[in-house]
Amino acid sequence: MRLNVITSNQGKAVEFKAAFKDLGISVSHISIPYDEIQADTLEEVVRAGVAALRAEGQSNFLIDDSGLFIDSLGGFPGVYSSYVQKTLGNAGVLKLLHGTRDRGAEFRCCVGCDVDGKTVMASGSCRGTILENASGSGGFGFDPIFTVDGVKSFAEIPMALKNSVSHRGAAIANLAGELRKMLR
Amino acid sequence: MRLNVITSNQGKAVEFKAAFKDLGISVSHISIPYDEIQADTLEEVVRAGVAALRAEGQSNFLIDDSGLFIDSLGGFPGVYSSYVQKTLGNAGVLKLLHGTRDRGAEFRCCVGCDVDGKTVMASGSCRGTILENASGSGGFGFDPIFTVDGVKSFAEIPMALKNSVSHRGAAIANLAGELRKMLR
Repeated sequence: MRLNVITSNQGKAVEFKAAFKDLGISVSHISIPYDEIQADTLEEVVRAGVAALRAEGQSNFLIDDSGLFIDSLGGFPGVYSSYVQKTLGNAGVLKLLHGTRDRGAEFRCCVGCDVDGKTVMASGSCRGTILENASGSGGFGFDPIFTVDGVKSFAEIPMALKNSVSHRGAAIANLAGELRKMLR
Repeated sequence: MRLNVITSNQGKAVEFKAAFKDLGISVSHISIPYDEIQADTLEEVVRAGVAALRAEGQSNFLIDDSGLFIDSLGGFPGVYSSYVQKTLGNAGVLKLLHGTRDRGAEFRCCVGCDVDGKTVMASGSCRGTILENASGSGGFGFDPIFTVDGVKSFAEIPMALKNSVSHRGAAIANLAGELRKMLR
């Protein structure tokens, strides 16, 4: 089985390739622009994206939408995480949380696949906290300010360890379960 | 001539009705949900919205997308202004600008019409600055923190005065010019 990961984010492509390696699913990375809708949930964005790509003639592909949902900011930046990362960056998010005690946050990931015309969806999440300062140069996006253990950021731990606890790792594991059921 | 203003924002509907009153165009307000795409510009969001509504069988309607683009924040919150207003609110934007000298900002508005199957687009903008504190209870959205004269916020001035200088007022005036040309 072969899936095209459609993303413009090189960091995500690397994580998908690593995660699917042991699942007997070979993964290629292609970058095709498609419209993402403005919606309150990642699931709505991904479902609309799968439909849009299928309407353009794509098949056997996988897309992903992820976001950082910060408790004390009403879920901000949520589904608009990549725009906020581009404009405010990690420094802006740290400024918004300056002096805030509640630093709880959740990374969420939703993946959607087309498998021979059928839609398969899966989600994963990862609870953690926002650090006081950015740290580390691994990963991408908000990784340098997010921690699961309260000490090391997602940008400071090895990718294999990150994938074993991360939202995207969880979503991929759930997706693999769905795909196994389907191919059985 | 009759146009349906399609918006879920009551404040916008009130402004459109007032502005079109003297133009011989009668305006009704209806609320129909439609998908807004994630894009870098208001124009792209509006153009896609007009196409989506037309595909659903709507005609002779007007939609609007507006945003506050803050210079020192790379244009944030921009096209995602309504989401940021819902989550961070004015307090969050003021916190992001705390200690920042450059408080320049621009309100932008793009309107798109369907007139008997033809698309008419127009834009308007309004330069100003972000106040140190929110003030006033008129208007909506970011109005309490935005000022043109450096003293009074958009939420503190009469609606007629706001419409004469605002981004939406300018967009409506430009649109009226386009419609007049078309109906001539």
